[in-house]
Amino acid sequence: MRVHHDQLVIGTKGKGTYEITDDIQDAIDKSKIDSGTVTVFVQHTSSSLTTMENAAPAARRDVERFFERLVPENADYEHDDEGPDDMPSHIRMVLTRTSETIPIVGGKMQLGTWQGIFLFEHRREPHRRQISLTVIGE
Amino acid sequence: MRVHHDQLVIGTKGKGTYEITDDIQDAIDKSKIDSGTVTVFVQHTSSSLTTMENAAPAARRDVERFFERLVPENADYEHDDEGPDDMPSHIRMVLTRTSETIPIVGGKMQLGTWQGIFLFEHRREPHRRQISLTVIGE
Amino acid sequence: MRVHHDQLVIGTKGKGTYEITDDIQDAIDKSKIDSGTVTVFVQHTSSSLTTMENAAPAARRDVERFFERLVPENADYEHDDEGPDDMPSHIRMVLTRTSETIPIVGGKMQLGTWQGIFLFEHRREPHRRQISLTVIGE
Repeated sequence: MRVHHDQLVIGTKGKGTYEITDDIQDAIDKSKIDSGTVTVFVQHTSSSLTTMENAAPAARRDVERFFERLVPENADYEHDDEGPDDMPSHIRMVLTRTSETIPIVGGKMQLGTWQGIFLFEHRREPHRRQISLTVIGE
Repeated sequence: MRVHHDQLVIGTKGKGTYEITDDIQDAIDKSKIDSGTVTVFVQHTSSSLTTMENAAPAARRDVERFFERLVPENADYEHDDEGPDDMPSHIRMVLTRTSETIPIVGGKMQLGTWQGIFLFEHRREPHRRQISLTVIGE
Repeated sequence: MRVHHDQLVIGTKGKGTYEITDDIQDAIDKSKIDSGTVTVFVQHTSSSLTTMENAAPAARRDVERFFERLVPENADYEHDDEGPDDMPSHIRMVLTRTSETIPIVGGKMQLGTWQGIFLFEHRREPHRRQISLTVIGE
């Protein structure tokens, strides 16, 4: 049993979902760990993680639109000094996920057929997002 | 330290919450791992996980009704070719959980008194759902 | 590789977010584990976990107000025998998190600059909350 740490840096071009499934699998390949888990952890409070259908772009747009309506930019937030998209980004992060732990068998993540892992960017401006990966296993 | 993988297959009869606490504990018993964690991972994008009060069926019904109202079937979704319950199921999954990691001490999950782990089925039709379990410990 | 278990007991003074980042780091220090992960698990169904910006109290108040509006106390819940804040507390728990797994490198949690881990108390009355910590690594 051992631990392998890795780091992803994802450049985002504003709000939306960015698939990182292959980047995570690359880190698992590099670790040479065959059996265990990978923990994905987003090191930010205005972007988050989600697992999602990866074959239907329309489904992703529906998810994004749902969050635009549920947590609107124009609500009367007390914390608004960093722009109209700042406070909604923190709330959308709380409603989604910061960490996800995925099983690894035979060196491969055990995802369902249509399952992908996505970085969910909640800010309008481009950002460089840091995602920590920890592979534990044998 | 070692890794033990297991797989649950849960037959659902449509929308609702299905308790899987005992099935997870059975897999831990089988693993003979005394101290560590179990990671539960749902391999689908239209069903999810939730921890919930397991003694009050009315509370479960209130949770289910809340999600019916928050993510209604009759909203104007772009992705609607798989039926009115398809897109809401993806959004409800994003709002809940795909993985949960639970501590194991003395061979037992360290849940609170009223805490149970549930599969949250978001589709109307019966499905066979795959849930991956990874026990890591000693 | 080894496992270290610890337990936090947090006294809450009613609804709100309570930072537990330093308490978690203390348990990691005590474990002497240098590289791995820590899993934080809330053993309750009416309080939960969230990662959040820890420098802006106004942002925390906005998050708390958002949940007051999204899951109001005065909705027509079937399960209402434990008071008006009981059922909303279970729903807010489902919408946030019960477990979070955080990477440890060089004995330190790999959090982003403004990231803190918080217990999210959803009940009005003071409670003693049990949080289980599991450090796995080497």
